[in-house]
Amino acid sequence: MIMKNKLEHYFDKLWPICRSITGDGLRQSFSILQELIPFQLYEVPSGTPVFDWKIPKEWNVKDAYLITPEGKKVAQFSLNNLHLMNYSIPVNKEISWEELKTHLHTLPDKPNAIPYLTTYYKETWGFCLSYNEFKQLPQSGTYKVFIDTTLENGSLTYGQCVLKGTSQEEILFSSYLCHPSMANNELSGPLALALLYSEIEKLENRYYTYRFVLAPETIGVIAFLAQFGLEIKEKIKAGYVLTCCGDHGKITYQYSKQANSVADEMMLHFLDTKYQNSNTRDFRVGGSDERQYCSPGFNFPVGTIMRTPYKIYPEYHTSLDNKSVLDFSCLAEIVYLLSDVCRGFEINHKIVPGHLFGEPMLGKRNLYPDKGGAGIMSSDLMFLLSLITLCEIHHTPLQVAQRLKCNILELQTALHIALREKLILPFSSSEKL
Amino acid sequence: MIMKNKLEHYFDKLWPICRSITGDGLRQSFSILQELIPFQLYEVPSGTPVFDWKIPKEWNVKDAYLITPEGKKVAQFSLNNLHLMNYSIPVNKEISWEELKTHLHTLPDKPNAIPYLTTYYKETWGFCLSYNEFKQLPQSGTYKVFIDTTLENGSLTYGQCVLKGTSQEEILFSSYLCHPSMANNELSGPLALALLYSEIEKLENRYYTYRFVLAPETIGVIAFLAQFGLEIKEKIKAGYVLTCCGDHGKITYQYSKQANSVADEMMLHFLDTKYQNSNTRDFRVGGSDERQYCSPGFNFPVGTIMRTPYKIYPEYHTSLDNKSVLDFSCLAEIVYLLSDVCRGFEINHKIVPGHLFGEPMLGKRNLYPDKGGAGIMSSDLMFLLSLITLCEIHHTPLQVAQRLKCNILELQTALHIALREKLILPFSSSEKL
Amino acid sequence: MIMKNKLEHYFDKLWPICRSITGDGLRQSFSILQELIPFQLYEVPSGTPVFDWKIPKEWNVKDAYLITPEGKKVAQFSLNNLHLMNYSIPVNKEISWEELKTHLHTLPDKPNAIPYLTTYYKETWGFCLSYNEFKQLPQSGTYKVFIDTTLENGSLTYGQCVLKGTSQEEILFSSYLCHPSMANNELSGPLALALLYSEIEKLENRYYTYRFVLAPETIGVIAFLAQFGLEIKEKIKAGYVLTCCGDHGKITYQYSKQANSVADEMMLHFLDTKYQNSNTRDFRVGGSDERQYCSPGFNFPVGTIMRTPYKIYPEYHTSLDNKSVLDFSCLAEIVYLLSDVCRGFEINHKIVPGHLFGEPMLGKRNLYPDKGGAGIMSSDLMFLLSLITLCEIHHTPLQVAQRLKCNILELQTALHIALREKLILPFSSSEKL
Repeated sequence: MIMKNKLEHYFDKLWPICRSITGDGLRQSFSILQELIPFQLYEVPSGTPVFDWKIPKEWNVKDAYLITPEGKKVAQFSLNNLHLMNYSIPVNKEISWEELKTHLHTLPDKPNAIPYLTTYYKETWGFCLSYNEFKQLPQSGTYKVFIDTTLENGSLTYGQCVLKGTSQEEILFSSYLCHPSMANNELSGPLALALLYSEIEKLENRYYTYRFVLAPETIGVIAFLAQFGLEIKEKIKAGYVLTCCGDHGKITYQYSKQANSVADEMMLHFLDTKYQNSNTRDFRVGGSDERQYCSPGFNFPVGTIMRTPYKIYPEYHTSLDNKSVLDFSCLAEIVYLLSDVCRGFEINHKIVPGHLFGEPMLGKRNLYPDKGGAGIMSSDLMFLLSLITLCEIHHTPLQVAQRLKCNILELQTALHIALREKLILPFSSSEKL
Repeated sequence: MIMKNKLEHYFDKLWPICRSITGDGLRQSFSILQELIPFQLYEVPSGTPVFDWKIPKEWNVKDAYLITPEGKKVAQFSLNNLHLMNYSIPVNKEISWEELKTHLHTLPDKPNAIPYLTTYYKETWGFCLSYNEFKQLPQSGTYKVFIDTTLENGSLTYGQCVLKGTSQEEILFSSYLCHPSMANNELSGPLALALLYSEIEKLENRYYTYRFVLAPETIGVIAFLAQFGLEIKEKIKAGYVLTCCGDHGKITYQYSKQANSVADEMMLHFLDTKYQNSNTRDFRVGGSDERQYCSPGFNFPVGTIMRTPYKIYPEYHTSLDNKSVLDFSCLAEIVYLLSDVCRGFEINHKIVPGHLFGEPMLGKRNLYPDKGGAGIMSSDLMFLLSLITLCEIHHTPLQVAQRLKCNILELQTALHIALREKLILPFSSSEKL
Repeated sequence: MIMKNKLEHYFDKLWPICRSITGDGLRQSFSILQELIPFQLYEVPSGTPVFDWKIPKEWNVKDAYLITPEGKKVAQFSLNNLHLMNYSIPVNKEISWEELKTHLHTLPDKPNAIPYLTTYYKETWGFCLSYNEFKQLPQSGTYKVFIDTTLENGSLTYGQCVLKGTSQEEILFSSYLCHPSMANNELSGPLALALLYSEIEKLENRYYTYRFVLAPETIGVIAFLAQFGLEIKEKIKAGYVLTCCGDHGKITYQYSKQANSVADEMMLHFLDTKYQNSNTRDFRVGGSDERQYCSPGFNFPVGTIMRTPYKIYPEYHTSLDNKSVLDFSCLAEIVYLLSDVCRGFEINHKIVPGHLFGEPMLGKRNLYPDKGGAGIMSSDLMFLLSLITLCEIHHTPLQVAQRLKCNILELQTALHIALREKLILPFSSSEKL
């Protein structure tokens, strides 16, 4: 199946599930994604302290709705799981319109949209409705509120998958799973992450170890970091958080907090030379899980890849963020970009000159075209000679590519030949330079 | 009295006085300014060597004029003190037009302007006239020259005022007092300096010590530096010379010689983020007292603040540089700018993270709005989270503000909360980082 | 004789000679150039290993032509020495059109141009014709091929001339001599190099030692470097390769591989401040002898100066690259530029303040205009005061000039006065700063 179709197929399977930061919807979603990427799942018990936080109780929901004074069922969870404020406590009682009103949430400036709201850390309840639905409700009388949820000790689930390379150094990819039925700001990230896994798995003789993390946003990644953060701190070469990467807007790269890390450098290189219809913006708080990866004490070289940023596309955090927002070709492009970035990292090892004093005579190595004077030079020949001489001062293929204003992957053939002919040497096998 | 009115009130009092680099006009002007700022005055005797220079004789003037062959009094000092070349020796004699002519100075290309000239270091005399006046003088016959001045051993006066903070580190402000009746290039600087004093005095718990210097240009500041220069050399954090800051042109900041000092950095920050209708230009010789503060051996981090630079506004160094050139609101804006810069310095102490590993949970500290998911973040909350995470790599509020592209003073509330909650720590009380 | 006429005079003498990377045409050309610059000549025997290369056999040519089946002499070497592929082996035989065809070279897209081709490192032969000539040849029958060349053990010739200064530090100029009758891409470089010698010789009290190298491109410079490269490696302060510098296009400076060497810095300074109708471009492989000078192990600070770059001007490497391509005034401008750059290096010694604490009083040194207050400052006075103060942080005249945005040579008078008056000091004679 071609990538964009595969993305759509799994989107359709994941869409209806009501997820949260804990609970069975989350587990069910992981179980579908495990068809694509062999996540190992971790269950962290409610009440476990994780740095400054504590794992909340587990929340599950069977049903929820309101019954109007006229007996009409509205705000039905079974029709749209956004109707119930996420983490609402169980309720089964009759209350006045006046009291109910304080539990209803709408977006008057987007009258067709059901807002998405949560109450993870305060035990209360609420319903979300489109402003148009809200206006049609009788403004007096007694309503029945029915919320069949459980909020009990249980556990928070997150997934991790490590694809070993020959090195301990790691490239990290992370996305989040915790929103109910939303498309761009929920499913685009996990889907791209899962398909990226297959692309990386295809790379032969991988040098880097690749770590894929999928967890509920914020608390899930904090739980992950509490368990693995210090262990991986010294290993992480680069990492990227995937969020909102399925709409048809331009690719947006948000810098890591460090802003000049190799994660930033390699990504910017690809955006400059190969995926040029793109934007960048600075690291910021109020974003996704890069907030945790880049938090003081960790400060990982982790940037964020998206298309139109969260909060900027108008459907964000509402029922309008549905399949119509997505373009699966655009989502596939994110997978290809990240896979290219990894291929860039894979060949970007330190190199030094293998040949000193004057240009090497390429003719006697059968690397030079016959007739002199023609003034024509194939690009591979040009890349070969450039690598040989420039690696004296630019010690990585990436730096050479940046000097040449080409993409690092264009150097691949010439790099292979130069290493084979010992015209350049890997740094480790060279004399001290 | 509001600031611009106060500036105008004192302008009117200082305007008529004939000042020079020494003498009673200078002392009288200081005495008026002492109503606003408690200057301590220093008298440096004539003949005192000050570095490469020597304090000149003291000059005082009672009257001066010419009488034409027809008996008409012209070039009367009592009508405009620019008519007499500053530092002219006493003269009382009749001379021919031919001889007189060599002592007359005009500006043919500004025919209504009396030029401003001095002869501090060569004992001679001269009269300055508008070209229009000059043309009406009889071009032959005998003139009477009357100059009732004294040039005798005495002293040079300068003023200094030190406002103590808790630290030995200093912020320096300096302007000059030595020109006769001119407005922008004489009174704008001392007036702004005097009013700035009141603004700084209002700042509570001042960390920095503030030093205000007012002295005759060049020789006066050299005298000041000869007495205090080496003592303050290690204490000066930043400083600014005030000159020509009362016209309605754009604010102009001239870099210190160092060009990348904290004086430059903080001023540029305010010009970038709060006073944006402004220009910058590089340090140069041929300017004001920054030439001395930045001279080899001192090389103080001292920049220059002005509006339209000296030599560029057409009234410069002529009788046209009068009250009509000034806009007292513009002059007040300079006071506010410098006062803001000081407030910036006052909060710009080194900070380090107080909270490691993951975002702090703000909810349990009552710092987070109730409903999740809303995608709305107050600017103080955003500043708080930004300070907490960014101070790991940007160790001052100024650097954080520059990363956030906001003004440092916007961070004040968040900085206060973060320090109170120990989410960030002052560098000095932190463990070695 | 004025420079452009002298350039043209020697151009005309050198033009007809058939040069190659070895042989008597090369020696004859050197002998003419020795009228302008006292080259010492070196002969490197065929077969000598030079780094990765080996000196080829020596090639000489008496005559060459083809006779068509109809008995017509064509492709006559005696009419244009480009007709014979350079380094063709001797041939004297009759062959069929079919066989001959594989030895004929044309440029169909430039039908009037005879291409320039060589076969230095593969023993074969060939003729080059304009496409228009080629089309008129009978396409069948038997041709006579006559090539009266020798390819025998002999030697490769190159020239070097060292003009001693008081220092061991060197400025290097290099060009190449190896092409038959072509103008811009052959004679422009050697001619400029030769005339530059006279300009440098005129400089009094030269500090730097100047080394002029003229050698066959690539192999000749490799031979030079094999003999002198390691000896001069530590001495070379800056160097420039001259190529294609006689057309009327803009001056082009190609950076050294280091890109931020003093060679680059000084040249860019002159292009920015004095020769502003110019371009720059980055170092690249596939260029001229900078490939050898900048090769790993040497990495000399050597840039390349040209006008329209090789391969870009349409006459390159064809018979169209003749006298009509040249503008001898433009060629002369290259000589002046390089000579200016040398004058810049000659005065660019480290300096430190000779006067501390406050501006020096220039009046008592008779360096200040009489009347104060005029606001006018001669440029030399401005340069003097600027050098005195700025050399505290910018330790060379070049850095001072860059801060002042003027040309370094404009500082010459002020520099002389400041040193004479000990207002600045040469670094070496100063106390430790």
